Amino acid sequence: MTNSIGNVVALAGGVGGAKLVHGLYQVVPPEKLTIIVNTGDDFEHLGLSISPDLDTVMYTLAGLAHPQTGWGVRGESWNMMAALARYAGPTWFQLGDRDLATHLLRTSWLREGQPYQTITAELCRRLGVSCTVLPMCEEPVRTMVQTQEGELPFQEYFVRQRCQPIVTGIRFDGAETAKPSRAVVTAIRQAEMIIFCPSNPWLSIDPILAVSALRRLIVASQAPKIGVSPIVGGQALKGPAAKIMAELGWEVSPVGVARHLRDVLTCWVIDKADQSYQNELTHLGLQVLVTNTVMKNDAERAQLAREILGM
Amino acid sequence: MTNSIGNVVALAGGVGGAKLVHGLYQVVPPEKLTIIVNTGDDFEHLGLSISPDLDTVMYTLAGLAHPQTGWGVRGESWNMMAALARYAGPTWFQLGDRDLATHLLRTSWLREGQPYQTITAELCRRLGVSCTVLPMCEEPVRTMVQTQEGELPFQEYFVRQRCQPIVTGIRFDGAETAKPSRAVVTAIRQAEMIIFCPSNPWLSIDPILAVSALRRLIVASQAPKIGVSPIVGGQALKGPAAKIMAELGWEVSPVGVARHLRDVLTCWVIDKADQSYQNELTHLGLQVLVTNTVMKNDAERAQLAREILGM
Repeated sequence: MTNSIGNVVALAGGVGGAKLVHGLYQVVPPEKLTIIVNTGDDFEHLGLSISPDLDTVMYTLAGLAHPQTGWGVRGESWNMMAALARYAGPTWFQLGDRDLATHLLRTSWLREGQPYQTITAELCRRLGVSCTVLPMCEEPVRTMVQTQEGELPFQEYFVRQRCQPIVTGIRFDGAETAKPSRAVVTAIRQAEMIIFCPSNPWLSIDPILAVSALRRLIVASQAPKIGVSPIVGGQALKGPAAKIMAELGWEVSPVGVARHLRDVLTCWVIDKADQSYQNELTHLGLQVLVTNTVMKNDAERAQLAREILGM
Repeated sequence: MTNSIGNVVALAGGVGGAKLVHGLYQVVPPEKLTIIVNTGDDFEHLGLSISPDLDTVMYTLAGLAHPQTGWGVRGESWNMMAALARYAGPTWFQLGDRDLATHLLRTSWLREGQPYQTITAELCRRLGVSCTVLPMCEEPVRTMVQTQEGELPFQEYFVRQRCQPIVTGIRFDGAETAKPSRAVVTAIRQAEMIIFCPSNPWLSIDPILAVSALRRLIVASQAPKIGVSPIVGGQALKGPAAKIMAELGWEVSPVGVARHLRDVLTCWVIDKADQSYQNELTHLGLQVLVTNTVMKNDAERAQLAREILGM
């Protein structure tokens, strides 16, 4: 059966997206699967270059992800943080001891001048991840969250302020000059299916689409472009997507998200809890799949992936 | 009694020196005690700026030092290293999880452009170390060990190759242009006693003295200049001092070390095991103290410090 699967490209951000990525990884031959990952959350902290979404995808595919939080490493310890606290150092961003190895390697390789894409591939390879994982671009793009308390760098908003400030807008610093790498361009051109994982559309998918050449390639692609709604039953399964949608004036529903992503989508997957929206979505010109989208375990991840591939 | 103690300056390297530093810290009022520390062992590793001797002195004075090894932090864990090994990363230099907090803070502060001396003072202050700890200079000085297998950076020789290559010479890259900071100059000028801790003379004391203005200040000082032999009974208490002395053609004895340091010393402290050398040392023009120099616990460290202060 797997031989009939063509090249699949999935766009993903953090925890929510990584679950479906993991489902795809279970059912798509690795040489046919490319994950393009949001790097708008990247930041510099304590001298380290940290790429939270790349790491979440990588740890998830390597089977190392923390089973409860979805981010960080299974069986993590926090002794560096304890020592940092003793120094009254910055403890608002948690860095686990095992996770630090990733940041140290990435940071030192970046300083040596190695391409971000090569570093990502090498980290994945060494953890045994056999599909292709690509940062959305080489250039630094930084998600800046405009709030009623002023503009905040993403991690300041997301971690330090726990998404509490009211969002008035979002911009992606550096996206206007960023270019997709040749590998990203090739992957999208050769894609026979493009999947938008149920990551936060405003914070995880939009930064990828803010790289304008990348967006144009996706818009131009003749492949089915299938998104999975991260909003189920009027709520985000994880994170601040619903809160941000409401603050920005969007309808908090699979329809609201579909309208936002309309020009890059051909198909939209919604949860059975939201089947009342099916007609409205169909009127938007979208092919709609209604199924279980809440992935509670590895089997449900694979099941959703299989249903998407079957569309 | 402590009111009668004048300003004390101690020169120290790693583990051996830190023991006596700790003894002095127990008996000298902290405002009168300045430790000038070797930075020739400093190196860059995994993008971190690491200062092993400064850290050993700091951890020892803060009561955090590992009781057996003398280096690193008591109760250390090694989970970052385990994750790094999984990546097939560089594991030849052990970085403990708690110890990493020090390297991350120092490295990020250095990148911000803060002076090395300020960073050292701040780390010590935050760990509750109340005497003054100074790096020997601001500029990078790197101990390079010339061996029969070629020239090796210090940590390559010391850690990676475990001091096995035969040493033919030692040079201190950068020392010729390095200058002691104003704080170092002032400390030596105001010193009423200068103490050479029983650190490796070739690898820990020589780099300090290689900063030529610093050496000149010490030579010119009228204060008693008291050294403690790191060689006891023909052996180094720790580390490769005896091996290196023999390889470089020096007599492996307190006399050999005293000859090497002759122009900066006025007094020499030797262990009772070496009292047969007393006459020979006296003929070198040195005042000699014979006592117990093997510091097996905190009390013996303080006792040796008291005897030195009494000279």
